[in-house]
Amino acid sequence: MTEQENQPNETSKLSLDQVFTLLKEEDYLQLQFLFNQAHPGQLADILEAMPPKKRKQLWELMPETQEVEILTLLNDEVRNSLIIEMPTEELVAAAEQMDTNDLADMIEELPEHIRQSLEENLSDEIREHLETNLSFEEGTAGRLMSQDVITVRNDVTLAVVLRYLQLHEDLPDYTEGLMVIDRDGFYQGKLLLNKVLTNDEDTLVKDVMNTKHEPILATTDEREIANFFELYHFVSAPVVDENNRLLGRITMDDVIHILREESDHALMSRDGLDEEVDLFAPVISSTKSRTVWLGINLVTAFLAAWVIGIYADTLDKIVALAVLMPVVASMGGIAGSQTLTLTIRGLALDQITVGNRFWLARKEILVGIINGLLWALVVAFIAWLWFQDTGISLVIAAAIVINLIAAAASGVAIPLILQRLNIDPALSGAVVLTTITDVVGFMSFLGLATYFLL
Amino acid sequence: MTEQENQPNETSKLSLDQVFTLLKEEDYLQLQFLFNQAHPGQLADILEAMPPKKRKQLWELMPETQEVEILTLLNDEVRNSLIIEMPTEELVAAAEQMDTNDLADMIEELPEHIRQSLEENLSDEIREHLETNLSFEEGTAGRLMSQDVITVRNDVTLAVVLRYLQLHEDLPDYTEGLMVIDRDGFYQGKLLLNKVLTNDEDTLVKDVMNTKHEPILATTDEREIANFFELYHFVSAPVVDENNRLLGRITMDDVIHILREESDHALMSRDGLDEEVDLFAPVISSTKSRTVWLGINLVTAFLAAWVIGIYADTLDKIVALAVLMPVVASMGGIAGSQTLTLTIRGLALDQITVGNRFWLARKEILVGIINGLLWALVVAFIAWLWFQDTGISLVIAAAIVINLIAAAASGVAIPLILQRLNIDPALSGAVVLTTITDVVGFMSFLGLATYFLL
Repeated sequence: MTEQENQPNETSKLSLDQVFTLLKEEDYLQLQFLFNQAHPGQLADILEAMPPKKRKQLWELMPETQEVEILTLLNDEVRNSLIIEMPTEELVAAAEQMDTNDLADMIEELPEHIRQSLEENLSDEIREHLETNLSFEEGTAGRLMSQDVITVRNDVTLAVVLRYLQLHEDLPDYTEGLMVIDRDGFYQGKLLLNKVLTNDEDTLVKDVMNTKHEPILATTDEREIANFFELYHFVSAPVVDENNRLLGRITMDDVIHILREESDHALMSRDGLDEEVDLFAPVISSTKSRTVWLGINLVTAFLAAWVIGIYADTLDKIVALAVLMPVVASMGGIAGSQTLTLTIRGLALDQITVGNRFWLARKEILVGIINGLLWALVVAFIAWLWFQDTGISLVIAAAIVINLIAAAASGVAIPLILQRLNIDPALSGAVVLTTITDVVGFMSFLGLATYFLL
Repeated sequence: MTEQENQPNETSKLSLDQVFTLLKEEDYLQLQFLFNQAHPGQLADILEAMPPKKRKQLWELMPETQEVEILTLLNDEVRNSLIIEMPTEELVAAAEQMDTNDLADMIEELPEHIRQSLEENLSDEIREHLETNLSFEEGTAGRLMSQDVITVRNDVTLAVVLRYLQLHEDLPDYTEGLMVIDRDGFYQGKLLLNKVLTNDEDTLVKDVMNTKHEPILATTDEREIANFFELYHFVSAPVVDENNRLLGRITMDDVIHILREESDHALMSRDGLDEEVDLFAPVISSTKSRTVWLGINLVTAFLAAWVIGIYADTLDKIVALAVLMPVVASMGGIAGSQTLTLTIRGLALDQITVGNRFWLARKEILVGIINGLLWALVVAFIAWLWFQDTGISLVIAAAIVINLIAAAASGVAIPLILQRLNIDPALSGAVVLTTITDVVGFMSFLGLATYFLL
């Protein structure tokens, strides 16, 4: 897809409302007409916003020429739901038109039998490219790169480059420069297009190519790739193997994809959700994906209940404690969650290291103490108004201070410990934190009450 | 900053650990030496990861030539902490070197007296550009655009364009094409560099320029801008006023900035945190920014306590209810939070509309019923093992099903209602949801118990 291709004007936007209206009116001809004019990105968005039945119906109305592009743009769950119903020949035809990095992405998520019959039917050249992409781990440059690269040799003149370029009707999107290799395929540098424009035709490529930036190693992690692009204002970047042989290139759209995935992961995993989840998935698959998370949280809820159970006698004697105890747990949960989110983000941005983690923990605990004292006063006062019992007021105030300090310390410590254990803090941090603030909250409040008030 | 400038090799990465070690050893010369070789983006990252005192110390060691670039890259809180200590002349000098869109971003966050003395001292030309940027609302194309654009006229030949380009040592980053205007400054199209390369010198600009895409209107919202860039693979795009006069251009780095901010906002606002927060802010300012959020949550916690208080007599008679009640509330909170996150994300991606919101609500409620029934059985069984009381088991099972249904319905409804009321669902959704799942959880469990077990 190049920018110059026949694309609609961005003002001719197809709205979701329009699609639903036309579906209701069963005006399939008009839908087909609009889909023919729309950009594949818009069509993918529309499919993702459809309940399953309507999704299949609309998919049939979308232009076949765009099918490949649409498939690569859909999220995994939605794409799979469409692919499963495609005849093998059609799927193979689509796969052969994809960039092999997109194909690698797709094929990994397919049910085993579909994957096999697809792989068997690919042409040798494409299978070979696909295997190259798949030989690198998910989330590395080698997996992300496109192997479709325009290269020029370092020992030719710009005049040769120009003639070569004139053979191409259009350059691929995100081509701000050409990759320069030597006669053996080793990466030499990047020839920026403006250098071709502003230098003499007799100049040799090697004299004007940009060698300031090291190429990206195929094993480089995607987060680091995104940082390079941001830091050095790349539009595209070469990917090489450990011997510096050019393997492919990564472009800006890959980086946007990385950023979006990272952001979705940070947001969704906190609720135990997969970032590729389909909002409109059928009931059964939605239920399955959520059940496990509820089960995990049930364990922590019973842990809290067990702590309360220890103090059943105390609760039996002073019922006001049962009324007030959720306040202590909840304040700890909220304060801890703030610290946790900040710490997880700091880790993701590589801002936390040996040199500052104690400073950070100390600061967060101090914040916990100050906020704890402040809100302990408020809570104690309200509790006193309610139950007119100084003992209960003093106990709840102390419990809140204790829980907010525990919350702050855990908010910093949990992500650091989980990371050390190679467990994703974005996924499990909140569960662990809530368990701690619940247990500490109930235990300190009911424990102090048992000791002082009985 | 152009890609060709003297920049370090990306392998010469300066690590945070290294900085902390050198600080400890007080080896300021080596620090200064490393800073001189580093990229401003790396220096900004280092400053953001420093406790306040060390931050000021390191800032003094950083190369003055990079100060402007570093300032534009810092987050608001950190930048302000440094600017407040700068002498006015130095600040004015820095401001005059900034792109006016970055300056506009910065100036809005400054304390009023610094802002005033800065604005008074700017040169007329820069103040005028600044006022143009500031005349557009935050988050619009007009505010984001850079007014530094290379333009060519539509009625000249490519030979003229080439001679003009040869006057520029280097093109600005993200220049995949030049903006074409007519003699009155009205936008005509984009001249892609590869068209200059592959067409005859006598060709007129207007015959090869790209007119497929409408320019971006200065009032366009940043989310829409990011979508355009992603959909059409733009590297840069023209910004025009309502009369189609070219005002500036937006580039890929702006889009990355938009995406990062959006993602930070979605993640942080859930805990009542500002996305521009400084992880290493001093204790007092950290405390202030978190206190309000704790206060808001305290109100909802007391609401839950009040509900429990209604049933104080019941709790007094059956203490097992006090032990188990957090389980009901917690399961509702977890399930509701999943639905809420999915719905908020769906809204952010424009996936939810009149045509599918009832389908979505129905599906989520069905998921709630199935998961509710499943986990109600498990909880009832555990409760029976614990307390050997069939009545309590039946009541808790019923309460969990009720709460999970309420959670699912609220998870869909709350964001839709908040959006209609122009309240940011990412900020307040979770608070409202927890209030509902707490209240419904305690009320259904204790209410049913009061009715059936007393």
